[in-house]
Amino acid sequence: MQFAIVVFDRFTALDAVGPYEVLSRVPGGEVVFVGEREGPVRTEVGSLALTVDATFTDVPHPDVIVVAGGPGQNDHMSDGPMHRWLRRADATSTWTTSVCTGSLILAAAGLLAGRRATSHWLSLELLAEFGAVPTEERVVTDGKYVTAAGVSAGIDMAIGLVAAITDATVAQAVQLGIEYDPRPPFVAGSPRTAPPEVVAVVRGLRDFIRTGER
Amino acid sequence: MQFAIVVFDRFTALDAVGPYEVLSRVPGGEVVFVGEREGPVRTEVGSLALTVDATFTDVPHPDVIVVAGGPGQNDHMSDGPMHRWLRRADATSTWTTSVCTGSLILAAAGLLAGRRATSHWLSLELLAEFGAVPTEERVVTDGKYVTAAGVSAGIDMAIGLVAAITDATVAQAVQLGIEYDPRPPFVAGSPRTAPPEVVAVVRGLRDFIRTGER
Repeated sequence: MQFAIVVFDRFTALDAVGPYEVLSRVPGGEVVFVGEREGPVRTEVGSLALTVDATFTDVPHPDVIVVAGGPGQNDHMSDGPMHRWLRRADATSTWTTSVCTGSLILAAAGLLAGRRATSHWLSLELLAEFGAVPTEERVVTDGKYVTAAGVSAGIDMAIGLVAAITDATVAQAVQLGIEYDPRPPFVAGSPRTAPPEVVAVVRGLRDFIRTGER
Repeated sequence: MQFAIVVFDRFTALDAVGPYEVLSRVPGGEVVFVGEREGPVRTEVGSLALTVDATFTDVPHPDVIVVAGGPGQNDHMSDGPMHRWLRRADATSTWTTSVCTGSLILAAAGLLAGRRATSHWLSLELLAEFGAVPTEERVVTDGKYVTAAGVSAGIDMAIGLVAAITDATVAQAVQLGIEYDPRPPFVAGSPRTAPPEVVAVVRGLRDFIRTGER
């Protein structure tokens, strides 16, 4: 079982590494970090580089595709090597998945047309521009397409995926192995539960990024 | 504010990247991946490499130290460059922290003597061999020493650390930014809550690793 995690410049680290930590523990599984070119790719803040070990050409038919998100997603919203690979790989994949704004890439490549999907809460509505049906849930499954909400949601998605691919015992063993018994110190992980002033701060950061004004 | 995340060959990816995703969002903060040598270091399963951007010599006085864990921790349990750096850096740090079996490295370096600390649940009792007081909590704070339980606990630890370093609004904004509203698909993240047969499977894997028998 080959898991291909797709990354690109200015990806968000946890989008990729959350699922990695889960999927790399599946017995008999093989995870490979895939991108346009081999070598290091850096996160949006630049202070962490992961290595792309295989190009799109090297990994034509993964069983499972996981597309990370992050600000660099904006560079992959029109036709190009990423979209062409995704469409070809999706034709034979068992599961095609994404974390955070990775769903926008899948949608822009035409793979989520008419399908329920999620994304980072700040980007959720954008899915509709590409024919997907924005769905406000942490993990959304529609056929073989599984999309996760923002950043940390990829961990939850991946554990569910392991249960679907293997069984509940393996999935729970992986969860116990990574001691995933979360205790967030605040109730602030969703715009529905965070204090309004905190939601305003994060929305403000987003507007600030969009307009580029400092 | 400089955050130094310490990694080494055969580290566990999420131990490092969970805190990274949180700490890299602190306004005015700078995260640097530190190790004995610059260049790629691979996880215990080998399918992911992160880049060490700075050597121990390059980062003598970080404000915050975060030591990752993972099977490679066993290579850093006796005196050597890692211990010498940790002791020097700890002399001036504001916070000295670890995730998973990273606490065993801190303890072996002599930094947790008499202090309450935690680790991955499978390794918790080993802390006592190095003079620390094993404490079965997800995040343990004793003075400026903060230790997190296994793998995913580094996310919870880092959000709490951001609150301590800045304030609750920033910490909650970071939590909302990474949409950390966890929904694990199973109740299996702790040996206290996982089904006994799942605990047995994970303990068995550990014994298998220890004895090296296949």
